[in-house]
Amino acid sequence: MTKKKVKSSSYLFPRPVVLIGANVNGNPNFEPLAYISSIEDKPPLILIASWETHFTNIGINENGTFSVNTPSEEIIEGTDYCGIVSGKEVDKSEVFEVFYGDLKTAPMISKAPLNLECKVIKTLVNKDFTGAEKGHELFIGEVVNAYAEDEYLTEGAPDITKINTFTYSMKQYWKVGERVAKAWEIGKKYMKD
Amino acid sequence: MTKKKVKSSSYLFPRPVVLIGANVNGNPNFEPLAYISSIEDKPPLILIASWETHFTNIGINENGTFSVNTPSEEIIEGTDYCGIVSGKEVDKSEVFEVFYGDLKTAPMISKAPLNLECKVIKTLVNKDFTGAEKGHELFIGEVVNAYAEDEYLTEGAPDITKINTFTYSMKQYWKVGERVAKAWEIGKKYMKD
Repeated sequence: MTKKKVKSSSYLFPRPVVLIGANVNGNPNFEPLAYISSIEDKPPLILIASWETHFTNIGINENGTFSVNTPSEEIIEGTDYCGIVSGKEVDKSEVFEVFYGDLKTAPMISKAPLNLECKVIKTLVNKDFTGAEKGHELFIGEVVNAYAEDEYLTEGAPDITKINTFTYSMKQYWKVGERVAKAWEIGKKYMKD
Repeated sequence: MTKKKVKSSSYLFPRPVVLIGANVNGNPNFEPLAYISSIEDKPPLILIASWETHFTNIGINENGTFSVNTPSEEIIEGTDYCGIVSGKEVDKSEVFEVFYGDLKTAPMISKAPLNLECKVIKTLVNKDFTGAEKGHELFIGEVVNAYAEDEYLTEGAPDITKINTFTYSMKQYWKVGERVAKAWEIGKKYMKD
């Protein structure tokens, strides 16, 4: 083994890609984001990290709500476009057809196969504990509702093989590949060795 | 559009898979985990959510360090095995050959293509703000060092096309698929439309 040190970075291969939705001054705005994780099951919580000066943050802080929209390849151009331009300069409310749910202030994308409607239950500001001058804000949202159309579901649950989403890595988008193995199953082979 | 409500859950398609390493009572222990995100670049921070009673948590809380190991398909059986058995019952120190870095207490897996050596800079307990009886602990780690072998690097940086890792979704592991498009590039097409 000849391991060597490479540049310290929070590498993760690959990262999921979602569009975060928030109303800013009552107008829908979206940003693609790959700093996201599920962090709890009961209640279902999702955490996102968004750079402090992003336009979307204004809306999340204003309403205490946001949406998580899983894109399909069909809307990859619109997804990426939202990462190129800022809502400060361009009105992104026309990029996608939008609908609202029970929270009323979290805009969701009709064409995205899966939408999570989230209520912020905790916010952290990274620079408060890193000491850096700037940084990301962490928003922890409770998933109040999830929405999908029948064509993306199997036995009532979203099915990754039907969603045709993509991931992010190395400034590129990547398909989800073939199934490799069952979890909590292939490891049993290790026990027999 | 005929969106309907599906079960509220913190869906994310797909999730990355890593092995978290921690020394418990001086002995290396590993757990596979898919609740993970990069959350900051300067300094590089990574956040993981691990169920409070997991054996690994004891070690992370004890030493204030952990490792993030990106597995390749070559070690998928060992990876999954570590999720089937608990360190409370089985000594997992023999599953992988281990090495240590500058922090001394974060065991890393030699055969994993990429290793992040992390120092905990903040810990949160979900149940403190959810009010649930049980939950996950959130560990925010600063990536102090990253390690890889030359064969996984392109121009000094880890390359997803060389690592042959996998993702997690719907209790299955999935390959990383083909490249779809360049980020911050394909969206420009949207502007021309």
